[in-house]
Amino acid sequence: MLIVMHHHATAEQIQTVEQAVAALGLQAVPIPGQERTAIGVLGNQGYVDDATIRDLPGVLEVIHVSKPYKLVSRDFHPAATVVQVGAVAIGNGHPAVVMAGPCSIESREQMLAAAQQVKAGGAHMLRGGAFKPRTGPHSFQGLGVEGLQYLREAGDAVGLPVVTEVMRIEQLDIVCRYAHMLQIGARNMQNFDLLKEVGRCRWPVLLKRGLSATIEEFLAAAEYILAEGNSQVILCERGIRTFERATRNTLDLSVIPLVRELSHLPIIVDPSHATGKRSLVPVMAKAALVAGAHGLMIEVHPEPDRALCDGAQSLTGAGFAELMGQLRHLQQALAGC
Amino acid sequence: MLIVMHHHATAEQIQTVEQAVAALGLQAVPIPGQERTAIGVLGNQGYVDDATIRDLPGVLEVIHVSKPYKLVSRDFHPAATVVQVGAVAIGNGHPAVVMAGPCSIESREQMLAAAQQVKAGGAHMLRGGAFKPRTGPHSFQGLGVEGLQYLREAGDAVGLPVVTEVMRIEQLDIVCRYAHMLQIGARNMQNFDLLKEVGRCRWPVLLKRGLSATIEEFLAAAEYILAEGNSQVILCERGIRTFERATRNTLDLSVIPLVRELSHLPIIVDPSHATGKRSLVPVMAKAALVAGAHGLMIEVHPEPDRALCDGAQSLTGAGFAELMGQLRHLQQALAGC
Amino acid sequence: MLIVMHHHATAEQIQTVEQAVAALGLQAVPIPGQERTAIGVLGNQGYVDDATIRDLPGVLEVIHVSKPYKLVSRDFHPAATVVQVGAVAIGNGHPAVVMAGPCSIESREQMLAAAQQVKAGGAHMLRGGAFKPRTGPHSFQGLGVEGLQYLREAGDAVGLPVVTEVMRIEQLDIVCRYAHMLQIGARNMQNFDLLKEVGRCRWPVLLKRGLSATIEEFLAAAEYILAEGNSQVILCERGIRTFERATRNTLDLSVIPLVRELSHLPIIVDPSHATGKRSLVPVMAKAALVAGAHGLMIEVHPEPDRALCDGAQSLTGAGFAELMGQLRHLQQALAGC
Amino acid sequence: MLIVMHHHATAEQIQTVEQAVAALGLQAVPIPGQERTAIGVLGNQGYVDDATIRDLPGVLEVIHVSKPYKLVSRDFHPAATVVQVGAVAIGNGHPAVVMAGPCSIESREQMLAAAQQVKAGGAHMLRGGAFKPRTGPHSFQGLGVEGLQYLREAGDAVGLPVVTEVMRIEQLDIVCRYAHMLQIGARNMQNFDLLKEVGRCRWPVLLKRGLSATIEEFLAAAEYILAEGNSQVILCERGIRTFERATRNTLDLSVIPLVRELSHLPIIVDPSHATGKRSLVPVMAKAALVAGAHGLMIEVHPEPDRALCDGAQSLTGAGFAELMGQLRHLQQALAGC
Repeated sequence: MLIVMHHHATAEQIQTVEQAVAALGLQAVPIPGQERTAIGVLGNQGYVDDATIRDLPGVLEVIHVSKPYKLVSRDFHPAATVVQVGAVAIGNGHPAVVMAGPCSIESREQMLAAAQQVKAGGAHMLRGGAFKPRTGPHSFQGLGVEGLQYLREAGDAVGLPVVTEVMRIEQLDIVCRYAHMLQIGARNMQNFDLLKEVGRCRWPVLLKRGLSATIEEFLAAAEYILAEGNSQVILCERGIRTFERATRNTLDLSVIPLVRELSHLPIIVDPSHATGKRSLVPVMAKAALVAGAHGLMIEVHPEPDRALCDGAQSLTGAGFAELMGQLRHLQQALAGC
Repeated sequence: MLIVMHHHATAEQIQTVEQAVAALGLQAVPIPGQERTAIGVLGNQGYVDDATIRDLPGVLEVIHVSKPYKLVSRDFHPAATVVQVGAVAIGNGHPAVVMAGPCSIESREQMLAAAQQVKAGGAHMLRGGAFKPRTGPHSFQGLGVEGLQYLREAGDAVGLPVVTEVMRIEQLDIVCRYAHMLQIGARNMQNFDLLKEVGRCRWPVLLKRGLSATIEEFLAAAEYILAEGNSQVILCERGIRTFERATRNTLDLSVIPLVRELSHLPIIVDPSHATGKRSLVPVMAKAALVAGAHGLMIEVHPEPDRALCDGAQSLTGAGFAELMGQLRHLQQALAGC
Repeated sequence: MLIVMHHHATAEQIQTVEQAVAALGLQAVPIPGQERTAIGVLGNQGYVDDATIRDLPGVLEVIHVSKPYKLVSRDFHPAATVVQVGAVAIGNGHPAVVMAGPCSIESREQMLAAAQQVKAGGAHMLRGGAFKPRTGPHSFQGLGVEGLQYLREAGDAVGLPVVTEVMRIEQLDIVCRYAHMLQIGARNMQNFDLLKEVGRCRWPVLLKRGLSATIEEFLAAAEYILAEGNSQVILCERGIRTFERATRNTLDLSVIPLVRELSHLPIIVDPSHATGKRSLVPVMAKAALVAGAHGLMIEVHPEPDRALCDGAQSLTGAGFAELMGQLRHLQQALAGC
Repeated sequence: MLIVMHHHATAEQIQTVEQAVAALGLQAVPIPGQERTAIGVLGNQGYVDDATIRDLPGVLEVIHVSKPYKLVSRDFHPAATVVQVGAVAIGNGHPAVVMAGPCSIESREQMLAAAQQVKAGGAHMLRGGAFKPRTGPHSFQGLGVEGLQYLREAGDAVGLPVVTEVMRIEQLDIVCRYAHMLQIGARNMQNFDLLKEVGRCRWPVLLKRGLSATIEEFLAAAEYILAEGNSQVILCERGIRTFERATRNTLDLSVIPLVRELSHLPIIVDPSHATGKRSLVPVMAKAALVAGAHGLMIEVHPEPDRALCDGAQSLTGAGFAELMGQLRHLQQALAGC
């Protein structure tokens, strides 16, 4: 931590800050400059709360050097994490994993049809939402436990592990009974109680980036899960909110190589929610792989025009099969690079 | 709903769209233009899901005219809502209500001291957090139920009703036992299950705007609560996330008059979280009142320099008393305007 | 400047960084910590370009303590600047100054009518745009020099000094001939050549904040003007671009008290462009004054419904007179606070 | 254009709006709904200014269907534009074009060295800045005309056409004398006078997206150039400003396929400015190509650690050669897809 003093800070003010640092059990090292004095803080084992210092007279700014995460940091854990979901391995050294299926589970028939299509296309995991967060209360809210049953039945029928969103702690037991991997949605990225609970349950977790979460907050959210002992976490970039409204969100692909520098956790991309437009999904899926994503999450619906949710961004089974062919080709090409 | 066709859309494509509209039980009215054709949609009782239309060949854009909220809308319910919390009335025709207290409840002594200070200053309600959402898992997470007891005891001691955040559904019963008003935090603004539950419990609710929530989403979140039968909802602007980092968030005061146009619900402002800087709180509190806020939420801590949370944005008891004097003066002056 | 090293940085890497600092003629002070080493940099007279350091092996981050501005900083120049435009003084210790008039000058008659209305309402300066930046080339682009003549004639007729935007360097001479104060528009806030030129011409300057400019960039832009010797600069907050589209821009009123802390320059607010909605202008104008603005810029048009530009945000003459009455009342009340 | 009326709008208010539409020479088509009436507007040849309508009593919202651009739209001009710069062709059906070189021209030697390195690596065009926009006035501002001479000399020496930024109209003649393509920087994307002038001079133009420009504004800016008769325009995505600060900007790659849908103009990507970090440039360059970019602009500096500008994001000659090898490999692989 570095404490920057005002140009006109007095010697007493500087001394008071040094005493406040000492009161935290830390060491203060004044760094006098020509324009102003800064005070370095030594001895902290991690992030320090600056509440008792920030407002002392003469303090201009407090700059944090430590990050609010440590367990997820590559700086402290250089080896890459590989997450195992049944027979599927996600992470460095493994081919990109594709999770596909409808946004929401609508019926047994729809789910089975979707499962057969994504299996035929070559997907590695099946996705589908049983509990749906929707902006307004008058939209379809999901089938609930019945949906979980359809999802698992469909996954078993085609031999794919399944991933689905858990929205609240009370759903955790029932979701764990049906799902091979838990998804934490973007709106719940900072639902810290939920994060702690999934941290305790040792199920693989797919953590989606919040709509307006910085990378630092994203990694700090993952830290909540790891801090409870669960290191089987996959990050998922799904677009952030910006001033641009021509796409549903702004897909931030630079986060892929950056997260791979900062953290040992695998990261995948959801181009369907990021763009919100079917025509943009395949090209952004390919760009995500080239950017280093360890996998993709793709919305596929047997009849997108009749989807109860997010039809506009869902591929058809045929569209998905075509994309998978392109992705295979691309990966072979990249392997040779 | 208005469906805009491509410049080069064919007559058959236009006809197919008209049939898709009819399949929804609605009426399509083509509006041919010189550049392109648009198709107006009539007969809908509210927001229509455009999934089955948006991707039909020849469709350029679907424009929604209806909003994802109705119960909170002033267009349909012109009379202003006044929320009653014990003897305190919040809304049009009532003096601005000030809720004050520490960010988090740290001890019985701290809470009592804070309560006496805010009461002495003239606050109308007491606030304090027992369950705290924090970016990283290594920060103080709140006292929990013990904190609720301290909060209520302090409120009773000085005769002020209390408001505190409920973070998850399982906490709802216990929080209702101690609090006179429930607070839904910014991170939970779209925790729809929680919104529905507080909608069912008939307690007054303070709903904070999400970090990156549009006004439309903010009002749609309130709609969740009203849709369950609870109309005792107060909105709270607390700053949004923008590119600017010199303040903790960007306080969006224009939302006050705008929400008062769009909705019948009262709205208050939290300048402490919005600015994150103690020196900015008083001036923005005053600006909020002039902008038409029905109340304020202000962080006050007996010893901000020792606060476990958000000390940098908390006023001292003396600072709060000074602000309250200014607010009284300002309100008298405004009454004469 | 503070250089933060990686956890695993080697002693040689640290030494190389120290040498790179020395090569810049500065002094390096290592601050060893338990997690990582940081290196303080002493001896710089201002902002240091970190290009030669940021990418050295083992460097995690470079943190700047100095700001890219100095002349505009209150830290170095505590006394508040008062800008004088004819008989009008803008800044601390003077009543708020109101500049009013149409967005664009459309005709001699319109300009005269507007001038009479704003004068009657009690404005202190007259505004009007002769050169108009418009998003698309097919919109009205302004009357040019003819407009300048109408503006000055109207100002002289009612006895108000005039302010108008200069968009390019070649216009500077002609604009200086007619205007008492030059306006730099939001789109030109970082048109550095233009800033330098107005810095040389010693005319009072109204500098509008760029659409996505941080406060630091805003002050650094003003620094360009002061660096050329012109300290007669007024800053103008006019809303920033965020994800919210319910208002034209997001008015960032917190910037007012913050700029007053950081800089000695006066700052005013333009609620017309910030909100884009006539109904929000009066209430936000009042909130701006309470937030500490030294003045306001308000769009007034004799017939807003026929305005060629920004009619939706313009007040009528009657609306303006009513607002001015409220502002006078408010200022008297505030004076007593 | 669609005009949406309030729920409670009266028959007279609706009639008044119809008359206002007629006064613009357009036709009004009322679309009565169950909740409210909308009024379709027919007969407009393009974007209509809604100033005279938006504020009429009873009007809730005005929704524009036409865009503020037409010449750049693929809807009206389906054939893709190929821009020719000397022997280099940029656009559909041509291999991706790489423009490389230093951010700023620092000396004759540096420019020649850079030119040789980028030529050796396989670049198709040489870039370098002679006039530099910098946030603060105390940073290096560029060599000016001397820099232009070095740039052209270096380009001629290695046989590459050169591109450089023109910042103001008066520089246009001299820049055209030395450069094969003009660059309009992000800060000048809405410098409309400059856009018009480059529209008149018939030189190929590289137009960079503004820091907070929507795609619609980006295309409308290009429309300014085409409207003056110059259709040789290449768009350039270079990152937008968002809340995320871990990268210099947020690279918005989805804009590539979206612009290719909306417009016939070629589009390239500048990953150097977008990310601001050397380690992210190669991977994002490859992702950009896969996303459909017609080219890349890459910063290369013989000695990045000594660069006067943006060294942290510049590749070395060796790094550039390595990237070019990967890009060739990738393009061959994609050709087979």
